[in-house]
Amino acid sequence: MVRNKMYYGACVYPELWSDEVMVKDYDLMQEIGMNLARMGEFTWSTFEPNPDEFDFSILERSLELTKERGIDVVICTPTPTPPIWMTHNHPERLHVDKNGTRMIHGSRQHICSNNAYFRERANIFVDKMMEVVKKYDHVIAVQLDNEFKCHVDQCFCENCKNLWHQWLEKKYETVSNLNEAWGTKVWSQEYRHFEQVVQPLPTPFLHNSALLFNYKRFHHEKLAEFIKEQVSVIKKHSDIPVTHNTGMFFDVDNEMMGQEMDFMSFDTYTPVEHYENFVLNQERWRYIRNDTRKTMLLETSTSYNGHLENYAVPHELGYVEAEAFTTFAAGTSAFTYWLFRGQRSGSEQPHGSVVSSWGDKTIGYESVMNVSQLIEKIEPLISESNVIEPKVAITYSDRARSYIDNEHGGVYNYKELMNAFHKLFLDLNIHRKLVPEGHDLNEVDVLFSLYMHNLSKDYLARATEFVENGGTWFVGPMSGGRTENHLWHTDNGLGELGELLDIKSSVQFYSKDGQMQGEALGMTSELNGLNTFVEVSQEASKGKVISDTANGQAFLVEKEIGKGKIVYLGAHVNKDLMKKLIKEHTRDHHITDILETSDEVVIFNRRGIDSNETQYWMVNLSKEDKTVQLKQSLVDKLNDKQLDKGQYTLKPYDYMVLA
Amino acid sequence: MVRNKMYYGACVYPELWSDEVMVKDYDLMQEIGMNLARMGEFTWSTFEPNPDEFDFSILERSLELTKERGIDVVICTPTPTPPIWMTHNHPERLHVDKNGTRMIHGSRQHICSNNAYFRERANIFVDKMMEVVKKYDHVIAVQLDNEFKCHVDQCFCENCKNLWHQWLEKKYETVSNLNEAWGTKVWSQEYRHFEQVVQPLPTPFLHNSALLFNYKRFHHEKLAEFIKEQVSVIKKHSDIPVTHNTGMFFDVDNEMMGQEMDFMSFDTYTPVEHYENFVLNQERWRYIRNDTRKTMLLETSTSYNGHLENYAVPHELGYVEAEAFTTFAAGTSAFTYWLFRGQRSGSEQPHGSVVSSWGDKTIGYESVMNVSQLIEKIEPLISESNVIEPKVAITYSDRARSYIDNEHGGVYNYKELMNAFHKLFLDLNIHRKLVPEGHDLNEVDVLFSLYMHNLSKDYLARATEFVENGGTWFVGPMSGGRTENHLWHTDNGLGELGELLDIKSSVQFYSKDGQMQGEALGMTSELNGLNTFVEVSQEASKGKVISDTANGQAFLVEKEIGKGKIVYLGAHVNKDLMKKLIKEHTRDHHITDILETSDEVVIFNRRGIDSNETQYWMVNLSKEDKTVQLKQSLVDKLNDKQLDKGQYTLKPYDYMVLA
Amino acid sequence: MVRNKMYYGACVYPELWSDEVMVKDYDLMQEIGMNLARMGEFTWSTFEPNPDEFDFSILERSLELTKERGIDVVICTPTPTPPIWMTHNHPERLHVDKNGTRMIHGSRQHICSNNAYFRERANIFVDKMMEVVKKYDHVIAVQLDNEFKCHVDQCFCENCKNLWHQWLEKKYETVSNLNEAWGTKVWSQEYRHFEQVVQPLPTPFLHNSALLFNYKRFHHEKLAEFIKEQVSVIKKHSDIPVTHNTGMFFDVDNEMMGQEMDFMSFDTYTPVEHYENFVLNQERWRYIRNDTRKTMLLETSTSYNGHLENYAVPHELGYVEAEAFTTFAAGTSAFTYWLFRGQRSGSEQPHGSVVSSWGDKTIGYESVMNVSQLIEKIEPLISESNVIEPKVAITYSDRARSYIDNEHGGVYNYKELMNAFHKLFLDLNIHRKLVPEGHDLNEVDVLFSLYMHNLSKDYLARATEFVENGGTWFVGPMSGGRTENHLWHTDNGLGELGELLDIKSSVQFYSKDGQMQGEALGMTSELNGLNTFVEVSQEASKGKVISDTANGQAFLVEKEIGKGKIVYLGAHVNKDLMKKLIKEHTRDHHITDILETSDEVVIFNRRGIDSNETQYWMVNLSKEDKTVQLKQSLVDKLNDKQLDKGQYTLKPYDYMVLA
Repeated sequence: MVRNKMYYGACVYPELWSDEVMVKDYDLMQEIGMNLARMGEFTWSTFEPNPDEFDFSILERSLELTKERGIDVVICTPTPTPPIWMTHNHPERLHVDKNGTRMIHGSRQHICSNNAYFRERANIFVDKMMEVVKKYDHVIAVQLDNEFKCHVDQCFCENCKNLWHQWLEKKYETVSNLNEAWGTKVWSQEYRHFEQVVQPLPTPFLHNSALLFNYKRFHHEKLAEFIKEQVSVIKKHSDIPVTHNTGMFFDVDNEMMGQEMDFMSFDTYTPVEHYENFVLNQERWRYIRNDTRKTMLLETSTSYNGHLENYAVPHELGYVEAEAFTTFAAGTSAFTYWLFRGQRSGSEQPHGSVVSSWGDKTIGYESVMNVSQLIEKIEPLISESNVIEPKVAITYSDRARSYIDNEHGGVYNYKELMNAFHKLFLDLNIHRKLVPEGHDLNEVDVLFSLYMHNLSKDYLARATEFVENGGTWFVGPMSGGRTENHLWHTDNGLGELGELLDIKSSVQFYSKDGQMQGEALGMTSELNGLNTFVEVSQEASKGKVISDTANGQAFLVEKEIGKGKIVYLGAHVNKDLMKKLIKEHTRDHHITDILETSDEVVIFNRRGIDSNETQYWMVNLSKEDKTVQLKQSLVDKLNDKQLDKGQYTLKPYDYMVLA
Repeated sequence: MVRNKMYYGACVYPELWSDEVMVKDYDLMQEIGMNLARMGEFTWSTFEPNPDEFDFSILERSLELTKERGIDVVICTPTPTPPIWMTHNHPERLHVDKNGTRMIHGSRQHICSNNAYFRERANIFVDKMMEVVKKYDHVIAVQLDNEFKCHVDQCFCENCKNLWHQWLEKKYETVSNLNEAWGTKVWSQEYRHFEQVVQPLPTPFLHNSALLFNYKRFHHEKLAEFIKEQVSVIKKHSDIPVTHNTGMFFDVDNEMMGQEMDFMSFDTYTPVEHYENFVLNQERWRYIRNDTRKTMLLETSTSYNGHLENYAVPHELGYVEAEAFTTFAAGTSAFTYWLFRGQRSGSEQPHGSVVSSWGDKTIGYESVMNVSQLIEKIEPLISESNVIEPKVAITYSDRARSYIDNEHGGVYNYKELMNAFHKLFLDLNIHRKLVPEGHDLNEVDVLFSLYMHNLSKDYLARATEFVENGGTWFVGPMSGGRTENHLWHTDNGLGELGELLDIKSSVQFYSKDGQMQGEALGMTSELNGLNTFVEVSQEASKGKVISDTANGQAFLVEKEIGKGKIVYLGAHVNKDLMKKLIKEHTRDHHITDILETSDEVVIFNRRGIDSNETQYWMVNLSKEDKTVQLKQSLVDKLNDKQLDKGQYTLKPYDYMVLA
Repeated sequence: MVRNKMYYGACVYPELWSDEVMVKDYDLMQEIGMNLARMGEFTWSTFEPNPDEFDFSILERSLELTKERGIDVVICTPTPTPPIWMTHNHPERLHVDKNGTRMIHGSRQHICSNNAYFRERANIFVDKMMEVVKKYDHVIAVQLDNEFKCHVDQCFCENCKNLWHQWLEKKYETVSNLNEAWGTKVWSQEYRHFEQVVQPLPTPFLHNSALLFNYKRFHHEKLAEFIKEQVSVIKKHSDIPVTHNTGMFFDVDNEMMGQEMDFMSFDTYTPVEHYENFVLNQERWRYIRNDTRKTMLLETSTSYNGHLENYAVPHELGYVEAEAFTTFAAGTSAFTYWLFRGQRSGSEQPHGSVVSSWGDKTIGYESVMNVSQLIEKIEPLISESNVIEPKVAITYSDRARSYIDNEHGGVYNYKELMNAFHKLFLDLNIHRKLVPEGHDLNEVDVLFSLYMHNLSKDYLARATEFVENGGTWFVGPMSGGRTENHLWHTDNGLGELGELLDIKSSVQFYSKDGQMQGEALGMTSELNGLNTFVEVSQEASKGKVISDTANGQAFLVEKEIGKGKIVYLGAHVNKDLMKKLIKEHTRDHHITDILETSDEVVIFNRRGIDSNETQYWMVNLSKEDKTVQLKQSLVDKLNDKQLDKGQYTLKPYDYMVLA
């Protein structure tokens, strides 16, 4: 059996085309060298045109044809697009947005996924579909739905209101507990019965933070519940792995969802200008569960994306190849295009594909062929090496995001904050992973926890244990200052974290434009943002405010606990100081004595399975020539030749594997 | 009888003022030299204060007074503003917008013009009004409504839903036909019954293009149906011509509407900065029907427009005179101000007029008098000449606009595209006309068809015949790539047009910022926009991509067919190359051996009815001095003197007539 | 008894914290030197958790504790936040916005304050609360509600519709009167019954100006009615003064509201960049009634404001002190922080306070202490002097604002216009007051009336009498051109004002970018804006248009009447000319022979009660050093030393008192 099988493929829509076209397209896929087809996510009206009237013949035909051609398949459940019989004359089943506007059939995700009838029909459908699917052993995974909540977030329908009340009662038991936990005395918002608790629909001004947080959690949990139901139907038939193609933008809790499935896959359509987002996807989804390092890229464009209301420009030639290199180097097992044959109707006609609606090669076709050759070239190396498990971990948490979604202060976006922070690790060539809150810290040396307004009891306990066992826990800014329900602490401003750090007092406020200045590690820095300054012992303070305001207060604190230490950063520092801080606390994880590169050269560390050699998979993800500085002689694995110490140039989108 | 009678007038509101004021205003109109009054478009509550209670005495008085003073009249039907009895307690008769918001009484166009009760009452009203109107032979036209759909577009009321289903059933006969034509399998949007087909109300993401297109057509046709009903009521009484004051902005199909009426009139309030729009109106509306070259300008400001929420600045002195010159030179038979006496209530108080609410001369009064003198000066020439029928035609199609409204890609607006294209003809002094799709091509030499995503069967057939008979058909960019229902073609990307051109393959994608470059006619050009590149024979290719991407593909194709040829331009080229292409293919229509001018000098070609001499009516529509270069000696007709070969200056807003 | 007692305090929320925290906080207030606590405005659900179940024990405890510590109290009624029992299952009681969206419980001001049940419950509550409050003589005022209409404006619920119809019937008696006054014949908007008159809900285009104006007035009057009801309940128990904390932004008629209460208080959170707004508040609210010069600042931040969706930056150290100096110098009797202890829940957690939720001193604490010292320093001077009643008055009218709200022309905002105009008086050091329309003009020398589209009969009559008695009335621009119902005049364009000025004709139009130019007082100026130009006698014209358009027309007119004169300014002139005009007409009120200062140094004129000496209270409200030029020797009252003639520097936020 092949180790680290590399999947290369595209999304196909057999329900939309004639048998003749289907055959032609699968032939071409095979010819190109593709071995993966994803299908099914919008097929409901074809396979169940009327309730309980099932016809999976097109699916079976498609599975036969792929099987014959050695093309493995990811089958999707079609729940984002229920047929018209689901919602016609049933407005109560439709999604209602935060303004109270009810959606209508005609796009996707217009259903309330908490609706009981929808859930029932979805389970019946999947049950019937699995009877077909389980017969084909080249189906390597079932993908649930498609980009859960990519167009919608919380639903505000009447049914959700009732479920919300039940959820609250289960969580809080008594309404007094809820009032206490939410601080509802402010503005006389107290409730006397659970059924009085509002959905956060329009008000003259803002809802309270606890309501906003919990309404999000309610939806996150309800979605996980739906996933659980679907998975249990699938697992009745087969132990085929279940996955989902998620993304960075959607308001879901990926960690929670991930626990219900076997692994997490993803979509990304990042242009070269934001290459760091492309990399971040690779380094987040494979760690979503503790028990697997599996992930697949299930959608990206051959050249450009677009829809009726947005035309986008093609990628430069070379970029798609660099994306594919990145994908496989990072340990992702599939590189999949959306889509093989362009849509001729609907709203996504202006989206890149492998072949156009009329069957001609598109502008992305050359890239498609280049990736095919790339795969052939790196396959031997991929199959004989694995990603080295990083010991530097950064917590990326959708729960943390929820707090910032609700308290953005007009300036913050969790994803942007995390992207910028993660990019520093790319620039510094520090081997890293982005992990969920529940990530097993046993093999971690350094843990970074930023922008986490609330540190859960469990997270704090595990982080503390991790420190006691010798870990370095770097925490802050905007971390630890809120309760689970998004209230401020009433003790020291940082709750348990403050106690751990032994702070005497704290103050939190926002500043900008250099209003606040600080000094640490011999550097000065503007402190722009929502900062926390604390009073601690002289020894513990490692960075101090030098402005008039809050003069002398600490924004950087170090505290040894057990065999390790906590490093608390209360303030937003500039990029230079942040880099220095990261380097300082990841000293064991630098490769600067081996090589250094320009920022836009991204490195993935792999280790030979048999050889045990350390490999540096490097790619220039920019439009300009970039440099690679070898501090020692290394082997160019793709060309099998020795490279002397010295400076080398990587052309735009070029890559190399050094060992 | 006077040939080419010139109408000069204003809109009046006898229902708003005392008899004394009315008399005073008509006296002043006569004194100014006005011979046209438009009235009636908002009078419904005055003439029918309660259902079936009619009182047209003010209308009769107003008609008597105008008749006595030699002022002809355009009478309007008051359907944009139904009285309160139409909608009070009848929300179901009100217009519902695309967000599902129901309008209320108090502005205008708040009614659903598809409502049966409204239609019935409108017909009864017009019937009664015509009993009065037909007695006055100085009523020269009946104008329907006022600027149909200037504030609203499609209606989403329940009644429209039912009519929509009937309309679909009539168009598609079976719902399978609809599903097939619309490609509804995408996203499981298929319908099983016509009554399931949604109105494109809010969804999480986009509706499909076919639904959007058809919902527009449904409304365009329903409006034409309403017009037809109204016209038939009017024609029962009189053969008085029926017209409508339309405009460039409204979402209607002017060609379709035009077929139901006798001629099309228009409103325009263009400031000097966009003088080309003013000209475009003159060159579009007179060609809306094949059987007439009649049009009237029924609304423009004496100085500035405005309303409660928008103050606008006055035109410079001279500009209104230049507008009037343009109007009559272009063959339009009326120049009419909105309005004579300023509104004192409502929402348009801050709008320019001839006299203010309190009867003083406004800031526009001087212009009003100047135009009066201008008319006296040019009348002898106008009465003895006609516009020469242009042989260069540019299709301006509201159907084509619908596709771009729905697929704007975030960048396109049909009107702006067409304005920019038409302006090139003004700059080049090529005598041109803007014609609807159904324009008779018998007298046309060159036909330009740009930005027409769909070329209808009929249009293609007639254009092909036109080519076979010796015409030059210049087609593209963004033309021919979609089916009638706004789907992509599945054969060659350009359907029948592709077959005509004999293309081997095609690719369409968007690019910008010079990402794509091409070469044609010895020039290079950036190709920025939604471009189509094709593979054709070496001989047919007249312009090629020179970028790396799509290198060597053709963006300009020439194909001889019969006695003529098709010139296909797939790409958006820069202005210089576009001008060169236009010149190249309109070679028989240049006047550069006679005269050349700065861009902002606009020329209209007329011919003496008796003398048969060619006249160049020229006007400087800018704020600066501009030049006119005579290549031969010509006669200045207004001053009756010989002008030698050489360069002359036209001051801002100045004009001349050369022969 | 102390004269001019100075109150210094903060808003407290005893209902939110434990008894222990409450005691601690009052202790600290006392220690800081605070003598005022405001409380109660959001307490309804605590004091009446279920209908008719009252428990004021926390209030009593809080009153006892403050009394013991010498802290006076302002008690608020909690009507902005009705408990859940008020609205649960009663959507008809909720506020409906202008789009027809119904609010929900969970924020504040979500109730329709015209709802009969709400009114009844509010009266019962206040009745019960007063039974407690009246027992405490250290309660110095009752504040009604909190910032009336700060998040909402007009309500569009069904109940308001009925009240609206009753209000109209009372105002107009017959619907014909309404139609006549509103000019509803325009666009056939006429009504036949009062119950047909719409609320200005969504329409395709604009509602008429009369409807918009009256719907605002209806709400302004209804709010005053509610206040009257509440006041009468309070006065049953006690003659304690009633006030309200209003602000500049809310759509209310403060003058009307002010007549129902004893005095008007205010909130302001102005950053240093807009210091003039801070001053304007001080100079407006004390004059809202004719019979008192009392006002209190009841909310300002210790350092910064903010909420979940808006982080703001802290004030610079010194600014809060300068604010406090300004407040007391201007004659305001209280300087009160919002809030003492930071909110830990709700939506305003990121708002500055005296101590944080967890009891630590905030970043604003140093300022709080500095203000305490400032008060000690200036108290002797404040207690022995009063603000000199200014004889230069500027009308600031919420009624005038309504016209501009509705007819903003896309460019105007009443508050911004008035701020800019008032700032000129600060720059010129002219002692001034901002007064309501009904201000007693007996003691006024010069009255400025700008941006008042409608001059009411009463206002005109009183202004004319004022002029006849020797006053100078400076009126315009954008004044006098509309009727009460926001129609244009039909006589001379300026109605009665035009008659007073004896104008022959007038014209009004908007221009910008120097399109219009004028000359007056030997200066030329661009005339940018909605200007009125008039034809008057040669003698009366003091400023003329010099542009081609409207050349020679007057924009500045002077007319002597009786012992005084009217100065009419029709146009918006530039700042230099405006300053010159102001100086020209306030000649008796200059202090330039005594002192001159940089613009940002603001001066308040006070007079010693016993000494009768004139004092100049000066403060530098900017971030830079500013100069003070003494033209004669003066005494520095705070340091009790002589200052020679010459130039002095005021550091940022520094202040001095000269006599």
